[in-house]
Amino acid sequence: MLTVYSNQGSGNCYKVRLLLTQAGESFRTVDVDVVAGEQRTPDFLARNPIGKVPIVEFDDGSTLPESGAILYHFSQGTPLWPAERLHQSQVLQWMFFEQYSHEPNIAVARYWCHFLKAESDYQEQLVVKRANGDRALGVMDHHLATHSFFVAQRYSIADIALYAYTHVAHQGGFDLDRFPHIQSWIDRVAQQPAHISMEHRC
Amino acid sequence: MLTVYSNQGSGNCYKVRLLLTQAGESFRTVDVDVVAGEQRTPDFLARNPIGKVPIVEFDDGSTLPESGAILYHFSQGTPLWPAERLHQSQVLQWMFFEQYSHEPNIAVARYWCHFLKAESDYQEQLVVKRANGDRALGVMDHHLATHSFFVAQRYSIADIALYAYTHVAHQGGFDLDRFPHIQSWIDRVAQQPAHISMEHRC
Repeated sequence: MLTVYSNQGSGNCYKVRLLLTQAGESFRTVDVDVVAGEQRTPDFLARNPIGKVPIVEFDDGSTLPESGAILYHFSQGTPLWPAERLHQSQVLQWMFFEQYSHEPNIAVARYWCHFLKAESDYQEQLVVKRANGDRALGVMDHHLATHSFFVAQRYSIADIALYAYTHVAHQGGFDLDRFPHIQSWIDRVAQQPAHISMEHRC
Repeated sequence: MLTVYSNQGSGNCYKVRLLLTQAGESFRTVDVDVVAGEQRTPDFLARNPIGKVPIVEFDDGSTLPESGAILYHFSQGTPLWPAERLHQSQVLQWMFFEQYSHEPNIAVARYWCHFLKAESDYQEQLVVKRANGDRALGVMDHHLATHSFFVAQRYSIADIALYAYTHVAHQGGFDLDRFPHIQSWIDRVAQQPAHISMEHRC
């Protein structure tokens, strides 16, 4: 059976659990405590040399890291990956936007504030993270003013990728009340068939 | 004709020019001076609200940002995108690795040192960027010790994505002499048919 090395509170890991559940894949999870550094043990680094969760491990022992690549892999042949080339490219556009302009700001601020409880140690860096994160949220809100989902007006892995850290952005000190279109979209994503919460244990 | 909004010295833009050339696409380029902030004008932000190059503009005026999405789009149906699902996922794995763990360290250090000529203003941040960048280069070197190219032993858009900033990493203060397998791979990439240098004007 497919194994997901996963941290329960990590949005990147939640993306994978959510996608696999909605794609109807059977899998088991192995918890990795990232605050305790379990992703940097020799055993874990043999599975993913960059020392990050999530990774999936196939039956033959081979692994696939990077949440975006995992979402791509297991969405093929499902409605979560569009059929048209331009729509596929737009899904990837939003997934690369998430990993470059969104996650490094929103997820990292959330990690400092919510997991390390160390907001006071990172005050200066948080000013930058929050400005850049607000900018990413602004781009999303602007797009969602005229789109029900990110690509082709239907739910895809682009929505899964962006939902994971956006819906918990308040844990990093972001004020989602400023982004009403994001709030409506969060509700739409949570109403999709087979949706699971970040807290749900797989 | 396809238009690429591009900065000549940007690795992300070079990826797109290199791929389009090797894929046999006709295109014209519009130079964007990022040091002067031309990517933050209202005109540019209307094309890409996150204010980054490259973007491609199609004949109908619609645009596609994010170098990774552009590489995906224009590699479809060419040998630069593999046919098997697992290989496709591995190509994206390395492209997400590049955008998250490689580019934010190596490209940013290069921008500060080579373009802004402001190494002394960023000394503290450069220590972190160089440690993280060396870690990414180490992961690449380890992989290339047993692989001629990143995926399936053949040249793909994963190689294009990683080549762009790696082959100029010395401009950010990185010492590629420490990574002999990367050096051999750089030579192999530069020998591919229809290769163009970063300096080549399209």
